Amino acid sequence: MNINIDEMIAELKRGTDEVLVESELLEKIQAAKKAGKQLIVKAGFDPTAPDLHLGHTVLINKLKQFQDLGHDVVFLIGDFTGRIGDPTGKNTTRPPLSEQEVLENAKTYKEQIFKILDPNKTRVVFNSEWLGKMTGQDLIKLAASYTVARMLERDDFKKRFEGNQPIAIHEFMYPLLQGQDSVELKADIELGGRDQKFNLLVGRELQKQHGQSPQVVITVPLLEGLDGVQKMSKSLGNYIGIAESAQSMFGKIMSISDELMWRYYELLSFKSLAVIEQLKQEAIYGKNPRDIKIDLAKEIIERFHDKAAAEQAHQDFINQFQKHQIPEDIQEFSIPDGTVIWKAMVMCELVKSSSEALRMIEQGGVKLDGEKIMDKNFQINIAEPIVLQVGKRKFVRLIK
Amino acid sequence: MNINIDEMIAELKRGTDEVLVESELLEKIQAAKKAGKQLIVKAGFDPTAPDLHLGHTVLINKLKQFQDLGHDVVFLIGDFTGRIGDPTGKNTTRPPLSEQEVLENAKTYKEQIFKILDPNKTRVVFNSEWLGKMTGQDLIKLAASYTVARMLERDDFKKRFEGNQPIAIHEFMYPLLQGQDSVELKADIELGGRDQKFNLLVGRELQKQHGQSPQVVITVPLLEGLDGVQKMSKSLGNYIGIAESAQSMFGKIMSISDELMWRYYELLSFKSLAVIEQLKQEAIYGKNPRDIKIDLAKEIIERFHDKAAAEQAHQDFINQFQKHQIPEDIQEFSIPDGTVIWKAMVMCELVKSSSEALRMIEQGGVKLDGEKIMDKNFQINIAEPIVLQVGKRKFVRLIK
Repeated sequence: MNINIDEMIAELKRGTDEVLVESELLEKIQAAKKAGKQLIVKAGFDPTAPDLHLGHTVLINKLKQFQDLGHDVVFLIGDFTGRIGDPTGKNTTRPPLSEQEVLENAKTYKEQIFKILDPNKTRVVFNSEWLGKMTGQDLIKLAASYTVARMLERDDFKKRFEGNQPIAIHEFMYPLLQGQDSVELKADIELGGRDQKFNLLVGRELQKQHGQSPQVVITVPLLEGLDGVQKMSKSLGNYIGIAESAQSMFGKIMSISDELMWRYYELLSFKSLAVIEQLKQEAIYGKNPRDIKIDLAKEIIERFHDKAAAEQAHQDFINQFQKHQIPEDIQEFSIPDGTVIWKAMVMCELVKSSSEALRMIEQGGVKLDGEKIMDKNFQINIAEPIVLQVGKRKFVRLIK
Repeated sequence: MNINIDEMIAELKRGTDEVLVESELLEKIQAAKKAGKQLIVKAGFDPTAPDLHLGHTVLINKLKQFQDLGHDVVFLIGDFTGRIGDPTGKNTTRPPLSEQEVLENAKTYKEQIFKILDPNKTRVVFNSEWLGKMTGQDLIKLAASYTVARMLERDDFKKRFEGNQPIAIHEFMYPLLQGQDSVELKADIELGGRDQKFNLLVGRELQKQHGQSPQVVITVPLLEGLDGVQKMSKSLGNYIGIAESAQSMFGKIMSISDELMWRYYELLSFKSLAVIEQLKQEAIYGKNPRDIKIDLAKEIIERFHDKAAAEQAHQDFINQFQKHQIPEDIQEFSIPDGTVIWKAMVMCELVKSSSEALRMIEQGGVKLDGEKIMDKNFQINIAEPIVLQVGKRKFVRLIK
């Protein structure tokens, strides 16, 4: 890539939460360049439930940046700890994963991450490879490398300890095992979510104890969901899954605020900071943010589907929402001629209740062949097939 | 043995600090008797520095009681933890022991404990046998069985934590590993010092988690040293080593107070409580406590040497202190005729200073050929060799 070192650092810092320590990052990059070597860039992932949404991709995008700069990206699957599960048996919803389950999850992970990362340049490793070989004595020696008080400085441990919530002793081993991974991999850089900062710093310490140059720790923030306020999460329903249809992705991205759009550009787009700055200028000088949003939607859809799907989703969107046209492939319902409109809405399952139907009519959200119907007693004449639309996205074709 | 169960329990409780839980001890003893089985009685020992004094034998005496009752005494040497040493490297005075050192120490242990325990009825085991086979995962599962908060209830951990003294995480593993020993051995009873109570109770919990009947925990107190106030310890100099000469043991035991003598009878004598009670009655009715003390000294010397040595030590003691005779083999010093007595004391190194010499004379602690000398300016006439005695035990022969 033909960018200077300042631009490179700016791109690497883009959208991150913290870089510890920035001067070391610069040193490592320069030393690697000089020696013609790759930096080892590590990120660890839980072996459970690899059903990713865009929030998860913020970190993977950051890995991609390092990969594009020619560095050695290590995608670590934490199967050792995953197989241990929760041995206290208190949390019955998380039983230990079998080796088979871990391998299946790893496969699904790869399918998803390789939409962003280059499979030929990505090392996928399992920490059971080395942690599984540790003896009891090795574990005790590892445990000896950190104190109880320092471990209790971790936010969640501290809160639980002060709140008299139990912490099982083996939980103290997790940060140490994660740090041991860094020692084994001789990681130069470790990426993680903001909540991983403590664990990542433990890795630095263990590396120092082993005479290694400590890894630079880069944390990324949690991506805001579609509402722009809460973090993107499945349970909050404000997410875009990376396996969603192109149409669904397009609609969801077009629904976000202009402000959130710029945040998504920062964290999700592969456009350079310079290009994004230019887009911002264009918006200031009058360009419709909607069109900038369309570009973002298309870029993301192209990443997880392909260019044609992105074009098609765009076209569908134009057809549905911009030209007020209706989709071609809609469901047909046969209803008696002269049916009152709110009854027709219930019959076609466009609403859940008659009261919802009446409210939609009152709010002006109901159309027949594009004409708004405000009269709740309006009787439908079905001489020809006619399109009944409720809200922006629900359509049926009424026939005799 | 032909004693009833109440007497048996009283003997087992004799001199102990705590029995947890006493009703369980009774149940276990009765159940074992009924089933014709032995109880497994465990005590763990550090593999370092097996140079025992009488304080250490309080616990071993208690093991002997169980052995005499026909139970299975397991003398456990904690070589697994011993070999780990202190891996933080902060305590350079305790490097990890080699396997060779552990074996040598074990040999020395056996030589010493088999003066009390029956070698044919004592199982000597090393916990590396099972702990050494634990994998990292096993260790993590063990760590999962206890919480940080409960571990911090242990007195010394609590004090260090509250005093901001570092506790390395592996230190939390020690009580768990010790408890694991009880699980592996299926211990019915574990004996330990008062400071071991917490660890012994952890063993109970782990056994419960493994579906075993929890061990009865018996703690023994720290034996008071010769001063009767502080615990017996090498560094305080108030100890009787079990490898000491018969003469030295005799002299030291004869030097203790009458009150401490009864304490030593309780914790060190193998005489039954009933016999000891009778001795107390005799003392009340006028028997000289000195003679009761002589019996104690002889019993202990017989244990660590033999009957003849005990008799000889007694005879030597009589010769030296009771008949005011002097030992045959004493050092000779040549001093000028007419030397002032306090100067002679300093020259012969019977005192450290002239002021100490003067004080001893004032207190009536100085004799020439058995005659008390109270005049500090007394000049010694050395026509014949003459014995100078300071206090009860220091003698030299003065010659021209």
